[in-house]
Amino acid sequence: MNIRAVIMAGGSGTRFWPLSRKNRPKQFLDIVSSRSMIEETVSRLGPLVPARDIFTIANAQQTVSLKSLLKTLPRGNFLVEPLAKNTAPSLMLATARVYLDDPEAVVAALASDHLIRNPERFRAMLEAAAAAASKDKAIVTFGIPPSFPSTGYGYIHFSGDKARKFAGIPFHPVLEFKEKPDRKQAERFVADGNYHWNSGMFLWRADVFAAKLKRHAPDFFVFWERMLEALSKKDRKALLRIFEEIPAISIDYALMEKVSGSLVGAGDFGWSDVGAWSSLYEVWPPDAAGNAVKGDPLVIDSRNCLVYNPGKLTALVGVKDLIVVDTGDALLICRRDQDQRVKEIVEALKSRKPELL
Amino acid sequence: MNIRAVIMAGGSGTRFWPLSRKNRPKQFLDIVSSRSMIEETVSRLGPLVPARDIFTIANAQQTVSLKSLLKTLPRGNFLVEPLAKNTAPSLMLATARVYLDDPEAVVAALASDHLIRNPERFRAMLEAAAAAASKDKAIVTFGIPPSFPSTGYGYIHFSGDKARKFAGIPFHPVLEFKEKPDRKQAERFVADGNYHWNSGMFLWRADVFAAKLKRHAPDFFVFWERMLEALSKKDRKALLRIFEEIPAISIDYALMEKVSGSLVGAGDFGWSDVGAWSSLYEVWPPDAAGNAVKGDPLVIDSRNCLVYNPGKLTALVGVKDLIVVDTGDALLICRRDQDQRVKEIVEALKSRKPELL
Repeated sequence: MNIRAVIMAGGSGTRFWPLSRKNRPKQFLDIVSSRSMIEETVSRLGPLVPARDIFTIANAQQTVSLKSLLKTLPRGNFLVEPLAKNTAPSLMLATARVYLDDPEAVVAALASDHLIRNPERFRAMLEAAAAAASKDKAIVTFGIPPSFPSTGYGYIHFSGDKARKFAGIPFHPVLEFKEKPDRKQAERFVADGNYHWNSGMFLWRADVFAAKLKRHAPDFFVFWERMLEALSKKDRKALLRIFEEIPAISIDYALMEKVSGSLVGAGDFGWSDVGAWSSLYEVWPPDAAGNAVKGDPLVIDSRNCLVYNPGKLTALVGVKDLIVVDTGDALLICRRDQDQRVKEIVEALKSRKPELL
Repeated sequence: MNIRAVIMAGGSGTRFWPLSRKNRPKQFLDIVSSRSMIEETVSRLGPLVPARDIFTIANAQQTVSLKSLLKTLPRGNFLVEPLAKNTAPSLMLATARVYLDDPEAVVAALASDHLIRNPERFRAMLEAAAAAASKDKAIVTFGIPPSFPSTGYGYIHFSGDKARKFAGIPFHPVLEFKEKPDRKQAERFVADGNYHWNSGMFLWRADVFAAKLKRHAPDFFVFWERMLEALSKKDRKALLRIFEEIPAISIDYALMEKVSGSLVGAGDFGWSDVGAWSSLYEVWPPDAAGNAVKGDPLVIDSRNCLVYNPGKLTALVGVKDLIVVDTGDALLICRRDQDQRVKEIVEALKSRKPELL
C-alpha cells in the first residue's frame, strides 16, 4: 500500500493576528513548538511516509515559503494552485497528480496547521485508514471525539455499530456530514455519542476518488479529466483556465456529503486545530499562576495570561485573563474570552492599515 | 529684582519604567507634551527669566543630555554636582554660584519634572514670590492646595491669617513643615484647610540663604564657605572633596524645617508632579471611551486604558483599566490602580536584567 500525503498549506487565517499575516498564515508560525506548524506536520509523517511521497498544495507565493522550510521534499512535490478556489479544486489537482503516477495510491489529504499531540497514534490511525481506503475502496475520514458542544466545527454522524477493523482499529460507516450546528443541535450531537467533529482530513485511493467524482459530481469530473490532461502535458495555461472556470467550493460540499459508504475513524491522537490565541493556553505550559508565556516574563500578582513576546521582557502587574501579543509593528491586548474578535481588528485594518495585514 | 532659576535636573525616578531608565529619568521624557519635561520647564520660564539666568544642576552624565536639549542656555549655566548627595548640597552649590555673581539675586529652586498647566499663573506666582523673598528676606515656598488626602507628599502647615501680599498675591507664614503623613493625619490636614502639599520649590535671596545656613545649620555653613572658595578658584578637586564629606540630606531637612519666618504661597497653577503612569491619564486627552493613548490605537470594546506606544499600532479588545507601555526592549501591562508597583519590577530587574534599568 502506497500512501501519498497531500498537505493543504494554502490557508490564510487571520485569527493569530498580529503574528499571522496575509503572507505568513498560521501554518508558518512557530506557535506550538520551536518549529513552524508545517514543519511539524511533515516531520510527524516521517516514520510512515517518505519525503518523496509528501506533497504540499498552496498558492505560488506560499509555495516559495514552503520550499524554503521543507528542504527534504523533492522540488516537484510542491503543487501550486493557480487560483484559490477552496479545497475541492486543489484536492482534485493533487489527487490527479498522484493518479498519473499510481492510480491505486492512497491520497491522505491533511491539514498543515493542526496540532497533534500523539504523533505515534496519529501514524497508526493513518496507516489503518489507508488500509481501509485501499481495501474497502471507501473514502475514509478522521472524526474528532468532541470534548464540548462546539458550534465552530462540522460534525460527522456515524453508525455506532457495524464497525470494521483495519490494523486493529475500528472504522464506522458515515451516516451524514453535518454543517456547523447551533448550540442546541451541538449539545444533542455530543449527548448522542455517535457524532464526531469533522477534522477535514480524508483518505482515498486516487482511482476511487475519480470514480466517486464521476458518479456523484459529474460537473467536477469534467474538470478532473481536463486536469489529468493538463498535468500530463505540463500545460500551465490550461491549468489556469480550469481554475478560472471551476466553482470555488469545499471538498465536503462537492463530494463528501454526496458519497455513501464512507468510513470514519476516531481521531484520538490529541488533536487541536489551534483555532485562536486562547487555544495556545492548553499548548504552552503555564506557570504556577497560570501564565503561559513565549518570551521573557516578569510577573507580579498576575494570572491566567497568555503572552507572545519572544526576545523581549514582558512585565505583568496585577492583571489577569489577558492575551498579549507583541510583534515588531503591532501590539494586541485582548481579553482571553474575546479572542474571536481579533477578526474585527483584521477587518478594521483593511481600510485603515492594510500594511499590517 | 533679579531672579536666577535653578532647575534641579538630577532626579533618577523609576516610576515610568520601561520608558524611564537610569540614564533617561522622567525629566527627559516627552510624556506631557511633544517635548521633554525639562524643555517645558525652561520654556515656561522664558517670558520671565532670560536664558542667561537659568541654571541646571545635575550629575555629569545627565548634564551631557541637558546640554544637548537646552541649546539656549549658556554653557556655563549647566552646574554639575560631583556626587549625588540629595538636594541640600546641590542647592548650596547652585546658590553659591549665584551668590558669587550677585548676593542679592533671588534663587528660584525649581523641579525639572513637574507639570504646570497654567504657566502664566505660575510666572505671576514666581514673580510675586521673588518679590517676597527679596523684600522680606524670607524663604518663600509654593504649597499645593491638596486635592485629596495624599500620603505621598510632605505638607506645609501655615497660619491662615496674617497673609502678606506681594504683587497682589497673598503669602502666609509657614508654621511647620510636616513629613509624609499617614492616612489619618493626611485626612486631618486636608480637613483643616491650612495645610498645603510641599511642592519642593523654594525661593531665597542668595545672601539670605547664607545667613540662614549660618544661623540654623552651622555644620553646613562650613561647607558653604568652602564651596564659595572652590567656585571662585574653579577648583574642581576641592569641590569633589566637599561633596565627598558633606552629608547627603534634603534641603527640607537641612534647612527648611529649622528656619522660622518662611512664607508659603498657594501654587494654584495646575500643578502635578506626574508621579506615576496613571497620573498621565489626566494629562493626555482620553477618547469617548476613556482611553488615553500616545500612539496609534485600534480600540474594540475597551475603556479607561492608558497606552504609550508611539509609532506602533496598539489593538485593545475587551479590556479596561490597563496601563500599557511598549518600548523597543520591554513591555509593561499593569492594572491602572497598581502603577506604584512598577517599583517592584525595577527592583526585580536589578539582579535579573540590569541592562533594562
